[in-house]
Amino acid sequence: MKKRVSIKDIAEKVGVSTALVSYVLNGKEREARVGEEIAGKVRKVAAEMNYQPNLIARGLKFGRTNTIGLIVADISNPFFATLARSIELEAQKNGYTVLFGSSDEQLDKSQNLINTFLNRQVDGLIITPVAGSQSQIEELKKKGVKFVLMDRGFKDVETNVVVTDNHEAMYSAVKLLTEKGYRKIGMIAYDTPLTHMQDRIQGYKDALRNAGTRFKSEWLKKVPYLDYKEHVADAIAQMLKKGDELDALVFATNSISVQALKVIHARGIKVPDDLRIISFDESDTFEFFYATITYIKQNLNEISEKAVQLLIKNINATAPKTAKVIVPSSIVLGQSSK
Amino acid sequence: MKKRVSIKDIAEKVGVSTALVSYVLNGKEREARVGEEIAGKVRKVAAEMNYQPNLIARGLKFGRTNTIGLIVADISNPFFATLARSIELEAQKNGYTVLFGSSDEQLDKSQNLINTFLNRQVDGLIITPVAGSQSQIEELKKKGVKFVLMDRGFKDVETNVVVTDNHEAMYSAVKLLTEKGYRKIGMIAYDTPLTHMQDRIQGYKDALRNAGTRFKSEWLKKVPYLDYKEHVADAIAQMLKKGDELDALVFATNSISVQALKVIHARGIKVPDDLRIISFDESDTFEFFYATITYIKQNLNEISEKAVQLLIKNINATAPKTAKVIVPSSIVLGQSSK
Repeated sequence: MKKRVSIKDIAEKVGVSTALVSYVLNGKEREARVGEEIAGKVRKVAAEMNYQPNLIARGLKFGRTNTIGLIVADISNPFFATLARSIELEAQKNGYTVLFGSSDEQLDKSQNLINTFLNRQVDGLIITPVAGSQSQIEELKKKGVKFVLMDRGFKDVETNVVVTDNHEAMYSAVKLLTEKGYRKIGMIAYDTPLTHMQDRIQGYKDALRNAGTRFKSEWLKKVPYLDYKEHVADAIAQMLKKGDELDALVFATNSISVQALKVIHARGIKVPDDLRIISFDESDTFEFFYATITYIKQNLNEISEKAVQLLIKNINATAPKTAKVIVPSSIVLGQSSK
Repeated sequence: MKKRVSIKDIAEKVGVSTALVSYVLNGKEREARVGEEIAGKVRKVAAEMNYQPNLIARGLKFGRTNTIGLIVADISNPFFATLARSIELEAQKNGYTVLFGSSDEQLDKSQNLINTFLNRQVDGLIITPVAGSQSQIEELKKKGVKFVLMDRGFKDVETNVVVTDNHEAMYSAVKLLTEKGYRKIGMIAYDTPLTHMQDRIQGYKDALRNAGTRFKSEWLKKVPYLDYKEHVADAIAQMLKKGDELDALVFATNSISVQALKVIHARGIKVPDDLRIISFDESDTFEFFYATITYIKQNLNEISEKAVQLLIKNINATAPKTAKVIVPSSIVLGQSSK
């Protein structure tokens, strides 16, 4: 890159001191009693020379860069891509620019992105943490970095966090099925200790218990995040063996749902006649499935707003308190749960 | 944030000079003849104090930050989200970290992100430019910023660019239809001067001409990027009026295709019996449409690889030549074009 135009370059061109240029470009010409004419000239020359304020330097001086770093777990998943866009819109409303990184659900990438963002002097971070990253998050706390976890958190680490009402949402979805008299209800979830998944699983179990149904361990299949597709196919094959058919299946994420629907479609299973279905989160693909799908709709806009607002509040506070924000979701009814 | 641990802090703790610590942490202890024992101690103390190299300062000193800024047009579009992930994987292979921003197809956001990235000292940029951003791109050239355009470019601005064979791809798709004897072929595209769209439209027209069919202006509908959904519905309503039915429709992007398929589905039009269809790019939703969809498959991995490699080549070159890389695509045959 060519050399950046500096305040000194402008000062030399206009024939004034660098201090005067600095006052003008930082909007402090009145305090410094700079005349309007000379202030105008400085601004004009700065524009002509295409001066770009060095926000890193300004960040060091004023303590702010008005930039938020967002680390999502997998940018190629439409759920996170939508969330990222929503975060970006809310940040923009508040005068912040968002830079994203994608950790790909991998610990080393997560650490690398955290370092990259901190070295680039962002004012704070919004993170959807990956499994096993407790120590990375604890390190952030220790360093006094301003951050908010989103979508998921850790049981044992107290942090700012904004999440959906995961337990409540899955509880309500399963209750919908038990109230129609269905009892043999299976669940496919990801195999991860992260709280969002644990809360969804607990919501499912609690709804069964409250309906007087004893949970059977073979009703719950946990699939690994990597190569979940094969495992979803296997899980459905095992769960829908002839002779002990389930009444219904709930899926813990939209990726699992899309994959499960493909398998169900391919196996010729009729929804809802042979099997009732409820998904956590939606997908564009649902629109083309022969039956409309009942799903838990997270309020992504509210999650994003709350996360950005909580982060900004923390950036501005000297001794901020830790907050946990739970955002209510809703259920969109389709034919699949009839 | 708490104060960053500096080289000076480490030097004081170990009881050596800052120069010595700097040699060790930059892997230059041999050149500086630092003994192994003391080098080991410096590294140990640096790790204990959780020293993070200041990459901005290092970037200023060594001229590199090993960071690429990626500006995509709309992160909530699965096409760009997939591309972003692919860029990230390729960059990682080459030792670079990627930070993304989404311009939302908006000029001011595009400029803002360019400024944000440059102020954060990225080594170079990969950009899918938005309509009307020629002057932003020309400014980058003038400043000597290393960058590569991806997916789209400008007719009048010579830059590094990596694109699909847009003209060839759409030409082949329409030829597939004319060879089966279909002549009345419509197209729905975005209304934008960006080259990728212009090339796709020209490919469509050229294929018609070469098949001896005179193009009729009412066969081509250009919809605005914002609220394209309504416009796609209107376009299909106009194009499929009774009495002058089209034989086939080609769609210039996956977003347009998904929306068009919804409308076609809702109107009870039978694909391929009443209407043949070819899409540019794929979508997860296609899997649930009652007919398999024929689509042009861009080689996103190769586009990403080429873009990252071209950028890195430019970062390392002192007087790099401008390159235009065209990546071949393929057609995936489904029932919809029969």
